[in-house]
Amino acid sequence: MIENPIKWPNGYRCAVNFSFDMDAESLLHIYFPDTAHNRVAMASRLRYGPEVAVPLIVDAFERHDLRQTFFIPGWCMEQYPRAIALIADHGHEIAHHGYMHEKINQLTREEERTVFFRALDSIVKATGRTPRGFRAPSGAFSRHTVDFLVEAGLDYDASLDGHDIPYLIGNGQGTLVELPHDATMDDWTQYVCLREFGYMLPIASPERATEVFRAEFDAAWRHGLLWNAVWHPFVSGRAARCDAMIELIEYMKSKGGVWFARLDEIATHVRSEIAAGWKPRVDRLPYRDAPLPGVIAGNGVLPG
Amino acid sequence: MIENPIKWPNGYRCAVNFSFDMDAESLLHIYFPDTAHNRVAMASRLRYGPEVAVPLIVDAFERHDLRQTFFIPGWCMEQYPRAIALIADHGHEIAHHGYMHEKINQLTREEERTVFFRALDSIVKATGRTPRGFRAPSGAFSRHTVDFLVEAGLDYDASLDGHDIPYLIGNGQGTLVELPHDATMDDWTQYVCLREFGYMLPIASPERATEVFRAEFDAAWRHGLLWNAVWHPFVSGRAARCDAMIELIEYMKSKGGVWFARLDEIATHVRSEIAAGWKPRVDRLPYRDAPLPGVIAGNGVLPG
Amino acid sequence: MIENPIKWPNGYRCAVNFSFDMDAESLLHIYFPDTAHNRVAMASRLRYGPEVAVPLIVDAFERHDLRQTFFIPGWCMEQYPRAIALIADHGHEIAHHGYMHEKINQLTREEERTVFFRALDSIVKATGRTPRGFRAPSGAFSRHTVDFLVEAGLDYDASLDGHDIPYLIGNGQGTLVELPHDATMDDWTQYVCLREFGYMLPIASPERATEVFRAEFDAAWRHGLLWNAVWHPFVSGRAARCDAMIELIEYMKSKGGVWFARLDEIATHVRSEIAAGWKPRVDRLPYRDAPLPGVIAGNGVLPG
Amino acid sequence: MIENPIKWPNGYRCAVNFSFDMDAESLLHIYFPDTAHNRVAMASRLRYGPEVAVPLIVDAFERHDLRQTFFIPGWCMEQYPRAIALIADHGHEIAHHGYMHEKINQLTREEERTVFFRALDSIVKATGRTPRGFRAPSGAFSRHTVDFLVEAGLDYDASLDGHDIPYLIGNGQGTLVELPHDATMDDWTQYVCLREFGYMLPIASPERATEVFRAEFDAAWRHGLLWNAVWHPFVSGRAARCDAMIELIEYMKSKGGVWFARLDEIATHVRSEIAAGWKPRVDRLPYRDAPLPGVIAGNGVLPG
Repeated sequence: MIENPIKWPNGYRCAVNFSFDMDAESLLHIYFPDTAHNRVAMASRLRYGPEVAVPLIVDAFERHDLRQTFFIPGWCMEQYPRAIALIADHGHEIAHHGYMHEKINQLTREEERTVFFRALDSIVKATGRTPRGFRAPSGAFSRHTVDFLVEAGLDYDASLDGHDIPYLIGNGQGTLVELPHDATMDDWTQYVCLREFGYMLPIASPERATEVFRAEFDAAWRHGLLWNAVWHPFVSGRAARCDAMIELIEYMKSKGGVWFARLDEIATHVRSEIAAGWKPRVDRLPYRDAPLPGVIAGNGVLPG
Repeated sequence: MIENPIKWPNGYRCAVNFSFDMDAESLLHIYFPDTAHNRVAMASRLRYGPEVAVPLIVDAFERHDLRQTFFIPGWCMEQYPRAIALIADHGHEIAHHGYMHEKINQLTREEERTVFFRALDSIVKATGRTPRGFRAPSGAFSRHTVDFLVEAGLDYDASLDGHDIPYLIGNGQGTLVELPHDATMDDWTQYVCLREFGYMLPIASPERATEVFRAEFDAAWRHGLLWNAVWHPFVSGRAARCDAMIELIEYMKSKGGVWFARLDEIATHVRSEIAAGWKPRVDRLPYRDAPLPGVIAGNGVLPG
Repeated sequence: MIENPIKWPNGYRCAVNFSFDMDAESLLHIYFPDTAHNRVAMASRLRYGPEVAVPLIVDAFERHDLRQTFFIPGWCMEQYPRAIALIADHGHEIAHHGYMHEKINQLTREEERTVFFRALDSIVKATGRTPRGFRAPSGAFSRHTVDFLVEAGLDYDASLDGHDIPYLIGNGQGTLVELPHDATMDDWTQYVCLREFGYMLPIASPERATEVFRAEFDAAWRHGLLWNAVWHPFVSGRAARCDAMIELIEYMKSKGGVWFARLDEIATHVRSEIAAGWKPRVDRLPYRDAPLPGVIAGNGVLPG
Repeated sequence: MIENPIKWPNGYRCAVNFSFDMDAESLLHIYFPDTAHNRVAMASRLRYGPEVAVPLIVDAFERHDLRQTFFIPGWCMEQYPRAIALIADHGHEIAHHGYMHEKINQLTREEERTVFFRALDSIVKATGRTPRGFRAPSGAFSRHTVDFLVEAGLDYDASLDGHDIPYLIGNGQGTLVELPHDATMDDWTQYVCLREFGYMLPIASPERATEVFRAEFDAAWRHGLLWNAVWHPFVSGRAARCDAMIELIEYMKSKGGVWFARLDEIATHVRSEIAAGWKPRVDRLPYRDAPLPGVIAGNGVLPG
């Protein structure tokens, strides 16, 4: 039913990636640069990610023989060597997620360049290798971001929302595979009620949240899509939710035909399909370089 | 039980319209005129509407032999000719939804006139015909809007919330059929968690959201009402939700006695019922021309 | 289990009142005094209350032989004579709800006095009798309100939240019966997603919302409490919700031992229980006349 | 599966504490120091805590033979002697929760010191003994808080979120047992829709809310964790919710192996485990003394 579908390897019906954004206190320092040090309880909650949740998640993945993808800000690479080692030593992919979880579309081009390459250095220093992929913190992909991704030679981006299957993005100088996601597969929308971050949402039970994630998976399975989680260790790594994740994995396995893969493996597959003749959508970025002229906006947006 | 009910054609018990507002990036440009171009991820999410969701929805409607109504800002008519052609070629109705999704009750009368007729021109240019209906973007129907609707000779409006069955609105110079809806049938209230647009709502599973939409339908079926969706391709056109929509359509069909129709067809039916003697409610608009004098408002509204 | 319970008449286990606040556009004029006239769609939604929902609710109550209580701002008394007549002619109680739904704790004492007695006059003029009860719009009961209630000789107040059974409030010059409620029985918390009014809540299906209301009723039935709805015609008078209300009423009836009564009847019963020796809690209002001295508040409240 | 688990006494699988924060109107005075006295309805709702809910909760605990922990601001100790006596006389623990529910990380060090010791005095005066534990109001644990906890010789803190089992915190001069919790076990996230406090959340039925609390308990039972509620009498002490709490307690008892304990008992056990050789995590606080230098934050946080 979907137009111009992608063929997954080995006859798999769909692809699944449980990617985790391990942000730790970078969120606190970027949102409250002046008062972060005085928010001890929130810091303790965010540190729960690398210190408690990551070991639990890595163990769960190990028992189910999964290798997945972790997006980690450069600053966190430096702060949490034990969590990083756990992740890397179990064969998971570590990818680029800014240096301090910056909202890069609120920075100047030069500032964005600085944090982009500073983050890249941190990952190389910690893992000994250049990351292959990137996800823009807070989804704040700017009009300049594609340039840095191409310049750094990355293979894929996982920041955008433009499709349910992979496609290509480029700036005229090079292209990357885009591995899109949607807020429906972001755990903040089910589990996070944090006034400090402006998230005032009811907390769903793992059972109700899983209904949402599983409905997306069932559709991916029926239609041949990419199911791409944006989860966070301090959120979805809590024991009750981690157990629900395991049940979801077992459900997926029981349906059969599911390709569990790291995002770098998926990007490689997409390139090989293209080489074999598949013609994906290609988006030239940015869509616009400047504000659209002539918009009659009145008082504009919210509220009232 | 409802007072002064309308008779639906051919003994149908109720009328159903799955209308879609295909806004694409118009939302971004009107809400963030200065920074829209730097919000690439949000743009990609909104472009998902015309590029991915519309083909899926049109295909689903085709398989169920439905012709429905799409409200599309004029600017989107110009930007997405392929989606427009898909919609028009399958017999769906294209109706007026502003030029750039303007909140027209925040514009001057002259600005509103400008965008109203600019949008009208875009639709005529793209489809070769004048649209028959209008829905005010963001529900921001102003005290001037009825004048432009009458001046342009449109047949119906679908912006208001004053009843569960059609009624008439007018300005003393002419009338239109009002085909009302309610936020309960708007998919944003079930599925949208977008901080940028001020929507911080939990994302419901398709099953839970359908409970809400179906309860409204069941009541429409029992009471002879109009069930009028306000859905958005980038929201409800995602595969899992589109499949749930199909199940809802099948449920509606299985109950029997449901008139699935385009809004222009419903407006025509309303006029013929009136010609046959039915006396609908008539609302003279605007309800008021100026602020109510003498209100003692204190510090007024929210919060505290 | 509850301390110092009240005895309901005729061996009833609990008391139930489905009270409705019929606010119509008073909400719009008080919240947006300068722009209300330019918000036509919102006005149409609020007018749905007196024009569509009230007839449906009155009819449903008639078929179930219930007489209940409607709180109506004075301005609405003047604007909607047909709805008022429908309500009054079916034996329902009409009680005081401000003149224009003012947040009275944001007014001066003199302003509050003005709107209080203006509203009283409107009710007397429309119904020929002084109302017996009062509910503060938006729960904004001020430190002066009790004085006006006593001065006007009202019998009861239904604004406060201090108990699950009736109690007394007074100012040293006189007392009123307090018939308390809680936000859990307010339909806005289940059904209202209105950005204009600062309510950004998911819309529950009638079935899920009824779970909440019914759980409160079941507890009232077990513990001998007062179940006191704060519903709104334009919200809970929609067909699907009105039908769910009827099912809830039938459920309550099937449990047995439920006293469905108007609030004035409940207030009368409370006074007779007191005369017979029951000693209710008595709250002298206001709790404080001035700010508490010496509070070290720092930067105070939200966010961060 | 959890790393370095703690052994619970007598072969228990997990520990459970239903702690209640009895804040009464302290919330109103700290959030609205200038207008609290004019918010009578909100005051009545908050007074419901000590006046109606505490007797119900104490009775429910008595019937189930439970002794639990109440965190109470010093000002409330002075205002509600009857509720305090009820709590203390039934063997429950009363612990430190600020003086007026201050957000202490918005105060100066000297202001924090003042309110900390003022609150301590209130508890000593009311109960005749020094409290053994502390929970920071609103989770606003500051960079100075640990110093006062050590200086006052308290045994435990229950403000942080860093683990699912107890650990130690210290400042180099002394340590305390940390008994962590998570917002998932906070009743505000399920039941509170209060515009005044910035909580605009849907109100869950007791059944749905219990799904969330029970899922956390089931995980605690499977993994050997501490289940530590942060509930509020005026919220969870309403009859329908109190009954649901009882059902949850009965469910927990029926599973077996659950240690219901006061937090001071849990702290004592943790110390004895440490004496017996268990090596818990130790967090030196604060994590940072000053803002992190060099953060490139752009326009920082929300929205857009």
